[in-house]
Amino acid sequence: VTSEPDPKSIPLGAGLEFDAIRGMLSRWGKLAVGVGDDAAVLDVPRGDSLVASVDTALEGRHFRSGWLTPREIGYRAVTAALSDLAAMAARPLGVLVALNLSAPYQVAITELADGIGDAVETAGTRILGGNVSGADALCLTTTVLGAAYAPLGRVGLRPGDFIYVTGKLGGPGAAVAAWQAGRTPSADHRARFARPTARLREARWLADRGAVAAIDISDGLAADLEHLAVASDVGIDVDLAKLPLLDGLHDAIQAAGSGEEYELLIGARDQLDTAEFERTFYLPLTLVGRATPREEGVRFRRRSERVAKPSGYDHLSR
Amino acid sequence: VTSEPDPKSIPLGAGLEFDAIRGMLSRWGKLAVGVGDDAAVLDVPRGDSLVASVDTALEGRHFRSGWLTPREIGYRAVTAALSDLAAMAARPLGVLVALNLSAPYQVAITELADGIGDAVETAGTRILGGNVSGADALCLTTTVLGAAYAPLGRVGLRPGDFIYVTGKLGGPGAAVAAWQAGRTPSADHRARFARPTARLREARWLADRGAVAAIDISDGLAADLEHLAVASDVGIDVDLAKLPLLDGLHDAIQAAGSGEEYELLIGARDQLDTAEFERTFYLPLTLVGRATPREEGVRFRRRSERVAKPSGYDHLSR
Repeated sequence: VTSEPDPKSIPLGAGLEFDAIRGMLSRWGKLAVGVGDDAAVLDVPRGDSLVASVDTALEGRHFRSGWLTPREIGYRAVTAALSDLAAMAARPLGVLVALNLSAPYQVAITELADGIGDAVETAGTRILGGNVSGADALCLTTTVLGAAYAPLGRVGLRPGDFIYVTGKLGGPGAAVAAWQAGRTPSADHRARFARPTARLREARWLADRGAVAAIDISDGLAADLEHLAVASDVGIDVDLAKLPLLDGLHDAIQAAGSGEEYELLIGARDQLDTAEFERTFYLPLTLVGRATPREEGVRFRRRSERVAKPSGYDHLSR
Repeated sequence: VTSEPDPKSIPLGAGLEFDAIRGMLSRWGKLAVGVGDDAAVLDVPRGDSLVASVDTALEGRHFRSGWLTPREIGYRAVTAALSDLAAMAARPLGVLVALNLSAPYQVAITELADGIGDAVETAGTRILGGNVSGADALCLTTTVLGAAYAPLGRVGLRPGDFIYVTGKLGGPGAAVAAWQAGRTPSADHRARFARPTARLREARWLADRGAVAAIDISDGLAADLEHLAVASDVGIDVDLAKLPLLDGLHDAIQAAGSGEEYELLIGARDQLDTAEFERTFYLPLTLVGRATPREEGVRFRRRSERVAKPSGYDHLSR
């Protein structure tokens, strides 16, 4: 980031829109840079490519307001967007946050801002700009900007490659299932939905050690394996018995359909040092399958027994 | 833009969300690049800074669905966002489009996509990525990425600088006033609201010829002059008798409150060659005022007679 003026050195105009922006800037302090001009200005490190993505969290579609505190909503929306940079093994340069604020969240704007700030600070990055509008439903659209010398993509797997997953799965799916059944999810499962982590450092570690393709698990392991396989033009053979499940969960098929995990699916030509990964990040890295020829498609088994493909989900149908 | 794979070479998964994306990609053809990975990858020209901004167009807040065709909605949302790059005198590198689609617009997605494509093609840029979600109200959030060796900002005016405006003002305000009064706006006024132009080439021409600060008119000339003055820590003296009004309009105070013009307000140390600008762009460039010491504030007059400050508008209060 270049020598932008301090955000508070460019005063904003009058009115509710600017009051909202000023309120957020006062919470963010030094986490926000250069806000107040028509656009943010930053430098991409020489030799790196720019990596950019946008993600939306809409009340009633991606979460229900009763499930999460405003602070968690802000944190989660920005973290989900940052997870796309992790999937590309990019370092974050900053985020832009477009907020559609319904009346209750105009009141809770400080908490929303704090959650956004938490996510940005956890990722070691900055808030570069944004937009505020009134609305009937809360919506946070986060643009993430990152840099990478050699970004990872979904294309790059060959038959024989090893497929790994970070962390333990099933928490978000279990939490949403509990809420939808009118139950209270366990604290662990709730935390995996409300406070996910973008695996930014983990992804760069893996890219440095030979990962050749990656995707973050937003649609569920089964659906995202399919995206990876289709993009790389390979099949993938997955042993559900190997899936790392969150404590207290036993249904690998449910875990394979659990979306918004924000763990990474990584392919590597050679086996990775999972013990070293776990010592470094206090997080499991688990070999769950192998890439196969395209004709074999994405196939699930439990040890030697074939299992039907777990279903993912579709944002538009929810 | 680097050698991303063709968008259609990375097939997308199944489901309505991906059908919507595929439908848009088929309309965009070569206008879309690299879509299908977790994030877009692009190169910023060496020596240039990255310029980034985000803008939201929300049904019921920024426009009403009866006012505009779906194609116009798509065009206008992306053009409004690109206008922020013009205000920085940046060249566009590409856009990311996050769409919240209500049911009627899921049906009209082809027209929306064509409007987005029109805006991107007019600006000579690309669609780098996006996001699609179902929603109760249509919302387009556009992130624009650009590059500039020396971006213009709002900071940079000194007392004595000359203040210019591009184009002719008042059309969008007159169109919205007509709609709100239940009348049909004139075709000219409607076109200025429905088909604005981001003054991208004009801004770079002006920056090359000595412009020192700029802003695009989104909140209305009066409000945006205030933003420019406050950011630069100067006053501005404006002669409303000099405001360039769209044909058929006579009320300079209304025109000074007309938002979403997407014309440029430009400050320059020396007088600019307005005749050369008009010959180049077939668009007027009009001297409307001078920067003054901060203590004098932003003042409006009609020739020698003081006039009360025209009011702008506030997105949250609408």
